[in-house]
Amino acid sequence: MSVRIGLLGSGFVSNFYLLGLQDVPGWTIPVVASPNAEHAREFAKKWNIPESNSDMYGVIERPDIDLVVLGVPNFEHRDLAIRCAWAGKHVVCTKPLARTKAEAKEMLDAVKTAGVLHGYAETEVFSPSVMRAKKYIEQGGIGKVLTVRSREAHSGPHGDWFWKKELSGGGALLDMGCHTIEAARYFIGKENRVVEVMAWTDRLVHKERTDAEDNAVLLLRFEGGQLAQAELSWTAAGGLDLRNEVYGTEGTIFTDVTRETSLKVFSKAGAGYTVEKSQSDTGWLFPPVDEAWVYGYREEMRHFIECVAEGRMPRENFEDGFIVNCIIEAAYKSAQSKKWEPVDYS
Amino acid sequence: MSVRIGLLGSGFVSNFYLLGLQDVPGWTIPVVASPNAEHAREFAKKWNIPESNSDMYGVIERPDIDLVVLGVPNFEHRDLAIRCAWAGKHVVCTKPLARTKAEAKEMLDAVKTAGVLHGYAETEVFSPSVMRAKKYIEQGGIGKVLTVRSREAHSGPHGDWFWKKELSGGGALLDMGCHTIEAARYFIGKENRVVEVMAWTDRLVHKERTDAEDNAVLLLRFEGGQLAQAELSWTAAGGLDLRNEVYGTEGTIFTDVTRETSLKVFSKAGAGYTVEKSQSDTGWLFPPVDEAWVYGYREEMRHFIECVAEGRMPRENFEDGFIVNCIIEAAYKSAQSKKWEPVDYS
Amino acid sequence: MSVRIGLLGSGFVSNFYLLGLQDVPGWTIPVVASPNAEHAREFAKKWNIPESNSDMYGVIERPDIDLVVLGVPNFEHRDLAIRCAWAGKHVVCTKPLARTKAEAKEMLDAVKTAGVLHGYAETEVFSPSVMRAKKYIEQGGIGKVLTVRSREAHSGPHGDWFWKKELSGGGALLDMGCHTIEAARYFIGKENRVVEVMAWTDRLVHKERTDAEDNAVLLLRFEGGQLAQAELSWTAAGGLDLRNEVYGTEGTIFTDVTRETSLKVFSKAGAGYTVEKSQSDTGWLFPPVDEAWVYGYREEMRHFIECVAEGRMPRENFEDGFIVNCIIEAAYKSAQSKKWEPVDYS
Amino acid sequence: MSVRIGLLGSGFVSNFYLLGLQDVPGWTIPVVASPNAEHAREFAKKWNIPESNSDMYGVIERPDIDLVVLGVPNFEHRDLAIRCAWAGKHVVCTKPLARTKAEAKEMLDAVKTAGVLHGYAETEVFSPSVMRAKKYIEQGGIGKVLTVRSREAHSGPHGDWFWKKELSGGGALLDMGCHTIEAARYFIGKENRVVEVMAWTDRLVHKERTDAEDNAVLLLRFEGGQLAQAELSWTAAGGLDLRNEVYGTEGTIFTDVTRETSLKVFSKAGAGYTVEKSQSDTGWLFPPVDEAWVYGYREEMRHFIECVAEGRMPRENFEDGFIVNCIIEAAYKSAQSKKWEPVDYS
Repeated sequence: MSVRIGLLGSGFVSNFYLLGLQDVPGWTIPVVASPNAEHAREFAKKWNIPESNSDMYGVIERPDIDLVVLGVPNFEHRDLAIRCAWAGKHVVCTKPLARTKAEAKEMLDAVKTAGVLHGYAETEVFSPSVMRAKKYIEQGGIGKVLTVRSREAHSGPHGDWFWKKELSGGGALLDMGCHTIEAARYFIGKENRVVEVMAWTDRLVHKERTDAEDNAVLLLRFEGGQLAQAELSWTAAGGLDLRNEVYGTEGTIFTDVTRETSLKVFSKAGAGYTVEKSQSDTGWLFPPVDEAWVYGYREEMRHFIECVAEGRMPRENFEDGFIVNCIIEAAYKSAQSKKWEPVDYS
Repeated sequence: MSVRIGLLGSGFVSNFYLLGLQDVPGWTIPVVASPNAEHAREFAKKWNIPESNSDMYGVIERPDIDLVVLGVPNFEHRDLAIRCAWAGKHVVCTKPLARTKAEAKEMLDAVKTAGVLHGYAETEVFSPSVMRAKKYIEQGGIGKVLTVRSREAHSGPHGDWFWKKELSGGGALLDMGCHTIEAARYFIGKENRVVEVMAWTDRLVHKERTDAEDNAVLLLRFEGGQLAQAELSWTAAGGLDLRNEVYGTEGTIFTDVTRETSLKVFSKAGAGYTVEKSQSDTGWLFPPVDEAWVYGYREEMRHFIECVAEGRMPRENFEDGFIVNCIIEAAYKSAQSKKWEPVDYS
Repeated sequence: MSVRIGLLGSGFVSNFYLLGLQDVPGWTIPVVASPNAEHAREFAKKWNIPESNSDMYGVIERPDIDLVVLGVPNFEHRDLAIRCAWAGKHVVCTKPLARTKAEAKEMLDAVKTAGVLHGYAETEVFSPSVMRAKKYIEQGGIGKVLTVRSREAHSGPHGDWFWKKELSGGGALLDMGCHTIEAARYFIGKENRVVEVMAWTDRLVHKERTDAEDNAVLLLRFEGGQLAQAELSWTAAGGLDLRNEVYGTEGTIFTDVTRETSLKVFSKAGAGYTVEKSQSDTGWLFPPVDEAWVYGYREEMRHFIECVAEGRMPRENFEDGFIVNCIIEAAYKSAQSKKWEPVDYS
Repeated sequence: MSVRIGLLGSGFVSNFYLLGLQDVPGWTIPVVASPNAEHAREFAKKWNIPESNSDMYGVIERPDIDLVVLGVPNFEHRDLAIRCAWAGKHVVCTKPLARTKAEAKEMLDAVKTAGVLHGYAETEVFSPSVMRAKKYIEQGGIGKVLTVRSREAHSGPHGDWFWKKELSGGGALLDMGCHTIEAARYFIGKENRVVEVMAWTDRLVHKERTDAEDNAVLLLRFEGGQLAQAELSWTAAGGLDLRNEVYGTEGTIFTDVTRETSLKVFSKAGAGYTVEKSQSDTGWLFPPVDEAWVYGYREEMRHFIECVAEGRMPRENFEDGFIVNCIIEAAYKSAQSKKWEPVDYS
């Protein structure tokens, strides 16, 4: 069986989804839709998708679609995901699941009521390096995990909507913190709940451009005592920075997919594109060999396609997305109250 | 169309071929054969291959086979490849193509006469890091390539036959030099012929175990003046070492797939398997995230499957394998004569 | 003029002081004293110091001593430093200055009243890599500093007294946090005060061994809005870990003196001592080339000797040590109150 | 006793000598001389040297000089060194000792006849990383050394005279090969003679600028069977590249002082000077923390000063310089004859 995907959104993340899908068998995309019909048309042409239009709700209703993939801005997640549920369509939603915990709850309720499969497209836990690290943890290679440190940073997002809190739901803490929260839960174990959080946020640079924070630090305390810590930034130079450090009783694991890359280039002439949000194409460069793979796009798409084909729930789903939104909501509260805040999952 | 592969050999390299094939669409393996029927049976079980036997010639003749993949020791390459040609079967042969230039010539003549497709399974030029490096070269990122330095080294091969010159055709110079010769031709350009070579070989450690060299240095001078240099060793500690350094007029590229890996582990407990021919699983470790991919097995298999499906000649074929054998033959001559030797391609 | 040093303490840190002094001109050590006379005697023999004894107060009073260096446990800092002040002796005190802010205040008052020179032996800001980083910041190479991240971690301290809160004043937060606080002040600028702090502390592993914390995370918010963050651990595998990451508006600086060392060794045989608190001497190793230099012992000793010889106040002195104790006191308060706490410098 | 140095030459290498001497006790430089009096005057001003002039022979004759340091171009080594010997002055000569073996022989004979101390200023074997590597070898950490690979490369030398074979004696092979020959002898053991050599040389880029080679590869075969190999280049991008790889029966050592530096900087603004012959000051940079130290200038100066103060022969002296010239002479012969050439030490 070939999974028939209706792709909503034709921007940055949808391009990465298509790159990731190139090496995955078992799917077709009959149609892509975007509010901007022209944009959808160009995307369809680029990726050999037979049809494109601006009718996103229409795509959801089509009988020749098994799975809807939401590659749209945060402010469109709730409505579209709920429509998918109503239409009985399996749905994959880009991270973060929603702008707020309340939105996420509505989405989760809808897919559960409808009984459809739901995937939460959180790349970080599908990054091959991160998955390999997890395997070493499971084999006992570093003993019991005690603390996790993650960093996700770049110089600021592409799309304009990211910078407006009403549309995005938040700044660097929401946009990138969602990655690090899932990384921490993955390494420490999802059965081990985050009980309280502490966050610092500030707008240090982009004061004209955004009403949200452009830098944040996040601390998560788990039920078992473990601590996870994350640095999130929209003001960092040097291209995308994605790192994890996992400290256990018997060892340590470091992952770094953008600066430890098996490829080092020094170019006086200019090497062209090397890495997401790179700020230089001369001098020393560390190009990731295959971005869609190292960031996790390929393996998440493979997993979602397989799950839909086999009728089983993805390992990363709306439950996880909802938990992330609960944690981030507590984090924003902490940034205001300036104290640790308990996480409320109800 | 699904390419139907008859796999000959069920040892080390065939395992890597199957690992590489896991993410490649469009193939089936109806049967695997090995002189050791029991070995073939276990391999078939492990990889869900429906049939296994010890009749390699029989597999070649089967009408339900489109492509024969030779994952057998060097001393079996010639006879089996020629039989494939006689049977009108497309054929992929593991590196090096043959033990000698004379054998390689017979093989090349046979496939050309038969008009079958032929692939030379040289992983190095299908390593994603190496292919990405090539792309930067083609884009002009490092200007004109002047010199190339490659190193391929480990502590010695797995199979017993590797150590007997009569069966293998040679030691580290043949076994690993074939990789570095193709890397150099790939970076510098195949249209630019290697005109003369200089080699040093010695048996520094494994004096009881082999009658071939366990260390070698190889210099290749190209028609355009470029120099490629390679170090080959069967006596190196620290696990498989695969590196290239490409020096151009406007820049430099380094590839290192086994020690610059985006994953660093410190394990007191022992991390289990990390890398081919690793000699330690405690302390600091640099596990390649996906060996079959980083070494080039996956991309070469993808390419060969696609070529056979589409009826076109692989970009790495018996012509290349023959050229490598010509160069290595000149290199062995140089190691004896202690001077530069011209390469004879006739 | 040669500065005549009275060295108090003959343990771990005094050894590093002597290592550091080896390349510094202009000093002599007439005498070393330790409560344990035998220990002092062995130390004197090892380092060619003419005299040793157990009379620390006596050494302070000796007329042939210009400068007293306190290489003693935290619980002895206050009394000995104050005695030095009373005796009109210049004094250098090992980090942290004191167990508590109150002790630090007494010490600072004493040296100010006495008008002696006082040095705060905080290695991190004398680490050549850190000083070079500072130079790049001053030159404008990374623009305005926004955030700093530091990590100081190992598997736990040498001496028994470190583990008893009454003797040490605190656990990993005090022992290692003092380094990272000064690193942050150094990078961000000392004129920019730390206004409030947040800390998490826990005892995750050494529950039998210590009544203090073995892990901590520390956040410092500066007057100018900058944030510094530190991870401190006594439970980390893989040897001493000392890193700084400095993020500015125009660039980034990373320092790592124990794992980016210009020397990589793979040893099956065992390489012997490589780095402080290393937990392995086989497999892959990254020996710092000269520990006393890279950690900052040499340059701090050079600076203190020069200052005393020239009669000027060291750039790192009891004022700084007092500030660090103020910050750490607020941090411990925050770990209890679970909220941001203002720093009180009075 | 303070060693009184007469410094001849006020260019690039003399600056590095003075940088190296800053942390070495026990010396004064009463006078610096250079054929260019103005140049000497500026140098003297910069380094607080009381006197400068253009009378190099006069300096050698001065009674207030114990040691003459020759920081002059290759074509002046012989005459000045011999004059030092005649004047009974101890002498240190910059590498390479001479342009030719014949010149080196004259110099060696002169200092031996005169009975003066003679130092061969070969930095590489005084590089702290290289000395630390040697210590690991001596401790048995990597077993018996089998092969050594060294690379020394940059984009071409500073001074004009370097490019004229008559003045310099040769190109990259002489200029940089002398470093790698001593590194190999140091790692493998000086008692183990180089018996034969093979070299490739070519002028790949600087065809207008030099009549010497701008690239070379050098192979050295030792009496004990070990092989050392070196790559030398005046056409390499990315700043000075100084690396050694030492392969033993039980392990491996890598040194890299210019790209594994404990300091990584990303600068959009421009970081200013970072490393010798750097070709970029923006983007990613790896500044050596202290160039005079990491390259070996400090430790060689310390050693020479100590030796002269104590009246003992330096561990690196004209005997070594002569041996290097013998080996390089054989190498140039090999580059012409295109075969291995024995080394003649007579």
